[in-house]
Amino acid sequence: MDLYFSPLACSLATRISLYEAGAGAAARFLRVDTKARRVADGSGTDFGTINPLGQVPVLRTDAGDLITENAAILQHVAERLPEAGLAPVGGLARSRLQQWLSFIGTELHKAVFSMLFDPEIPEAAKAVVRRKAQPRLAVLDQHLRGRVFLLDGFSVADAYLVTVLNWCRVTAVSLDDYPALLGYYKRMLERPAVARAVAEERAIYAELHPEARLPPAPRA
Amino acid sequence: MDLYFSPLACSLATRISLYEAGAGAAARFLRVDTKARRVADGSGTDFGTINPLGQVPVLRTDAGDLITENAAILQHVAERLPEAGLAPVGGLARSRLQQWLSFIGTELHKAVFSMLFDPEIPEAAKAVVRRKAQPRLAVLDQHLRGRVFLLDGFSVADAYLVTVLNWCRVTAVSLDDYPALLGYYKRMLERPAVARAVAEERAIYAELHPEARLPPAPRA
Repeated sequence: MDLYFSPLACSLATRISLYEAGAGAAARFLRVDTKARRVADGSGTDFGTINPLGQVPVLRTDAGDLITENAAILQHVAERLPEAGLAPVGGLARSRLQQWLSFIGTELHKAVFSMLFDPEIPEAAKAVVRRKAQPRLAVLDQHLRGRVFLLDGFSVADAYLVTVLNWCRVTAVSLDDYPALLGYYKRMLERPAVARAVAEERAIYAELHPEARLPPAPRA
Repeated sequence: MDLYFSPLACSLATRISLYEAGAGAAARFLRVDTKARRVADGSGTDFGTINPLGQVPVLRTDAGDLITENAAILQHVAERLPEAGLAPVGGLARSRLQQWLSFIGTELHKAVFSMLFDPEIPEAAKAVVRRKAQPRLAVLDQHLRGRVFLLDGFSVADAYLVTVLNWCRVTAVSLDDYPALLGYYKRMLERPAVARAVAEERAIYAELHPEARLPPAPRA
């Protein structure tokens, strides 16, 4: 399969999931220059022909079909690599997976971070959004007290959550009031697959944006 | 099962799905006063004990478990009522369902309509959000050319999309530039299950908000 990605964007969740499954070699990672809307593989392919919204991730399956949207891609990857146990296959546990994927995608990614990252959104609106983030982070903090993962074991929802939590520092969203969530985030960053995926994408990002000063990742 | 709902909120998608399945009697519909955060069934139950974010829908399954998030609830309802064929059960078709549920939830519901409905978000930010709505509506318009449904047959994703499109009029988001999408919306509203669900919730809404002037639904 092919994963169209941009370093440290939400496509990182799929890279983490693939590495957790020991299946990094199962995918070709194709970087997208999201500003120029081109695939940065030397082909100059117009990324608008792959996703008209210009967003990553896009996954091309082994059968050649294009899938967009993190929740769909992550569940496809989990289904494609069943031995890795990245997602429950039915019943309430699968509903819980879908609930967390949706919560992270709607309440955190779109309702909070997409707004904070958007240079067109005025600061007054961003202040409202930052306030709205608090009860959402509190829901996660409450859920993660006494838990290691969102579900009973590592799942694609954890891959998505750590990807989104990575954006807190650059958007000045503090996790200090949420010790269970902060502890979870630090533990996730220490998992070898997560550490490798994050380090690789940080290096790509730093090379592309030498002027940017990425904050250091927190340590457990 | 119990569905905690608020009239014309995104919980409408579950009511539509249940009616499409001929299974309206399988659920108890419990209205939530989302402003007061109380269940409006005379019990005065603090809805914060059911969902700390105070959002509908929440579904209590027959086994007594609470599920939040539209994408998870709609897929649970489809799984619970398999004979109704409200969702593909595997493969690429299921990925497409999950893709559309995520697209509607993230790109339309949260990125556009939640912002436009929020009285705290300044008008300058809402103007940005309205511009962002255009390419997203265009994606749907393009997809729906020559199609009756989002997938091959009616699915819970259609129930969610018609629910969200219902918000266009009150938020001044025009569909006039998107004839395939507008035609789809009008056709959906004519389906008996959709028409019944919308009419019932409009009536509840009108009774609760006599000062509000709901725009009439468009006709095919």
